[in-house]
Amino acid sequence: MSNYPNETIKSIMERRSVRKFKPQQITEQELDCILNCGLNAPSARNTQNWHFTVIQNADLISRMNEKTKERIPPETAAFLKERHGGREDYSVFYNAPTLIIVSGEAGNEYTDFNCGYATQNMCLAAQSLGVASIVIGMVRLLFRTPEADEYIKEFNIPNGYRPLYAVCFGYADMQPETPERLEDKVNYIR
Amino acid sequence: MSNYPNETIKSIMERRSVRKFKPQQITEQELDCILNCGLNAPSARNTQNWHFTVIQNADLISRMNEKTKERIPPETAAFLKERHGGREDYSVFYNAPTLIIVSGEAGNEYTDFNCGYATQNMCLAAQSLGVASIVIGMVRLLFRTPEADEYIKEFNIPNGYRPLYAVCFGYADMQPETPERLEDKVNYIR
Repeated sequence: MSNYPNETIKSIMERRSVRKFKPQQITEQELDCILNCGLNAPSARNTQNWHFTVIQNADLISRMNEKTKERIPPETAAFLKERHGGREDYSVFYNAPTLIIVSGEAGNEYTDFNCGYATQNMCLAAQSLGVASIVIGMVRLLFRTPEADEYIKEFNIPNGYRPLYAVCFGYADMQPETPERLEDKVNYIR
Repeated sequence: MSNYPNETIKSIMERRSVRKFKPQQITEQELDCILNCGLNAPSARNTQNWHFTVIQNADLISRMNEKTKERIPPETAAFLKERHGGREDYSVFYNAPTLIIVSGEAGNEYTDFNCGYATQNMCLAAQSLGVASIVIGMVRLLFRTPEADEYIKEFNIPNGYRPLYAVCFGYADMQPETPERLEDKVNYIR
């Protein structure tokens, strides 16, 4: 348990974004547990206004990767290429075998928070099971194109919902970094 | 451990919004741990663009409650009064002894997600320590008035940041409900 007061806090503190995944797929039990924890997140006025599309089809992931990369602005592309050791043929999803596309109800001011709670539940549940994760917001580039409606149809996203980002899951093939925490983020009124 | 595969998942599944708190204040160690877990949430591009104002001043909480209630639309007011057993003198914060006002950077498309991750970390850390929580979005009503700037100053919220909602913490004085989960929230592409 090291220095943490309990296992939940250990999961929270040790969950860090992973940028290299093993090819091995996660188990059905792990996936079910991750999804169930996402579905049991709180939501403002109990709207539960999220939707999760699990993608484990390598061809589709590869196509989404190519299409996303076509839309990355040049300065970001240079940064990403460097992050991937100078390789052009990197995956924005870090070759994770499972993506969960998180979609949310459009036009509700609490949607993004609700989806954030659900996403963190999924990432922490994964962490506790030995499954690593990273949120890829960049895939939004895909959903802001004329093809967005095709993805919405392909992903079977409910009416009135829009895809927000992808959460990648798999077994870590690296030791993730712990970025330093910024200071002056808390104040007290007593 | 009941039926959950581990303690983290138990914390996730058993964390439910609480609407009645004991007057007793949470300990400094609990508060520190909750804040530290919030600060260690992931954030898009590692911006950590949140800010937490801890409020444990009963007079200020009472004033915020009164001012929020003045701004609640009549149909919501009726619903809330009923939820509080028909009492007029209810607290929108359910008399929780600690509020954390979560603020986020304005104008960043990932702010609300990032604040969502941090909030869920805080609620789950609290749960694992026996501390209950509820997010009160309604306090946004306060921050959309001409007085908003005064609160921003009083709370010492950094430049470029705006208050989003309050998370209430304390010891539960009720057994929280587990609202039913909606169906058709997940689909698979394999």
